[in-house]
Amino acid sequence: MNLITSRDNPLVKDLRRLSQDSTAYRKLGRVWLEGDHLCRAALARGVKPEHAVFAESLWATAPREWTQAAERNTVLPDALFAEISSLESPAKMGFVLAAPTSQEVQPTTPTVVLDRVQDAGNVGSILRSASAFGFKQVLAIKGSAALWSPKVLRAGMGAHFGLHLVEGLSADDLNALDMPWVATSSHQGPFLHTLLAEAKLPMPCAWLMGHEGQGVSAALAERATVHVRIAQPGGEESLNVASAAAICLHASATCHLG
Amino acid sequence: MNLITSRDNPLVKDLRRLSQDSTAYRKLGRVWLEGDHLCRAALARGVKPEHAVFAESLWATAPREWTQAAERNTVLPDALFAEISSLESPAKMGFVLAAPTSQEVQPTTPTVVLDRVQDAGNVGSILRSASAFGFKQVLAIKGSAALWSPKVLRAGMGAHFGLHLVEGLSADDLNALDMPWVATSSHQGPFLHTLLAEAKLPMPCAWLMGHEGQGVSAALAERATVHVRIAQPGGEESLNVASAAAICLHASATCHLG
Repeated sequence: MNLITSRDNPLVKDLRRLSQDSTAYRKLGRVWLEGDHLCRAALARGVKPEHAVFAESLWATAPREWTQAAERNTVLPDALFAEISSLESPAKMGFVLAAPTSQEVQPTTPTVVLDRVQDAGNVGSILRSASAFGFKQVLAIKGSAALWSPKVLRAGMGAHFGLHLVEGLSADDLNALDMPWVATSSHQGPFLHTLLAEAKLPMPCAWLMGHEGQGVSAALAERATVHVRIAQPGGEESLNVASAAAICLHASATCHLG
Repeated sequence: MNLITSRDNPLVKDLRRLSQDSTAYRKLGRVWLEGDHLCRAALARGVKPEHAVFAESLWATAPREWTQAAERNTVLPDALFAEISSLESPAKMGFVLAAPTSQEVQPTTPTVVLDRVQDAGNVGSILRSASAFGFKQVLAIKGSAALWSPKVLRAGMGAHFGLHLVEGLSADDLNALDMPWVATSSHQGPFLHTLLAEAKLPMPCAWLMGHEGQGVSAALAERATVHVRIAQPGGEESLNVASAAAICLHASATCHLG
């Protein structure tokens, strides 16, 4: 075990950056996973952390599950740990993981494509829905919220670790997908939309979920072969994108349950 | 038109408080509605603002739709307006509305009950789904996020103005509801759950949506006569409460479309 007490220690500086800057993990090559819920979810999925970091007050009583998870354990005074926390009530432990670097698009894994979905909470919710409904790959087009940022990790509640995630993609990168694309819109666009409840939904498929304000870009939407609309008997309100995704992914998964 | 340039003006102080403190509207009896999207949604639903407030740079070119909406117009220098903004890119106009005070529970209006749902983004998303799927009443049990706070208003995207909203309720206040209650859970609880897709869903009904961590309280859940479970072929992840609400309200509304 390694006790660090200096604010200027390089590890502390890196952790502070990782917890405050949503895209720092791309530069530093490491992800900071804060709090026991997320860390437990990672371990349950077989993730091997590089490094476990504890607040001093937890260290003495930390369960073996935590203290033996990583090759290295580091302990920080509680006040210093609080500085590298992005939570209002700071957690007392976290893991450092190698940042995932896969750019491989799996051609036939049921997929959700995020076309510049901006809000970290929305992206996290969509990852949870994707995981719950068996869409094991999420592909994020450049301009989407950073998938491994602290906010998306928190909103994802561990879903990250059951999914194949690739981000920073261009529209052309999606050419690797070898299955039908399905798009949804609450607006009447240029496409013939079937009501979701009446649509024949292919499986496997790739669902397109778009930007909160602009929806799916026209260039992507026109490559979809199925266009569905969610019935809104209450009126023409637009739905939150994570709500729309939940409805679509649930329908898509359950209409094949037989 | 009234130009205010002092940071210490009582209106400016009130607006600053309303934009920064999520429950200040309860004490001040007024709601601060910021930005043209929300203001337009309010006008479209027939809301009469008490007061319209403009940043100086917008005032000269503001459309009549805005300048004639309220009995009083106030203009603030842009820097002062930015101080009362809760947005990263400050809006340039907003309305002050009388805070809704109705405590009346409508007995047979299709309803969503929020049982201590904490997160403002989740509450706003649920209001949008409720509105889209024809659930015209939302009842918030004490401990839920403040419905008219700036964050919930922003996430609600105008849904507030098409709904009958009552908050600060006790479990007993729900006795006024005269229709079946429906509860959902992703966990196997003490109740017999039917899969959502196979359930006979009553209409009108009141859907119970619970706290992000704890779900619906046992005391409320046992008063529900229908318990449904959302199929999760991907595994036993839990869903975000706003995602679960979207799926349930959509199913509930569309299974009666015939």
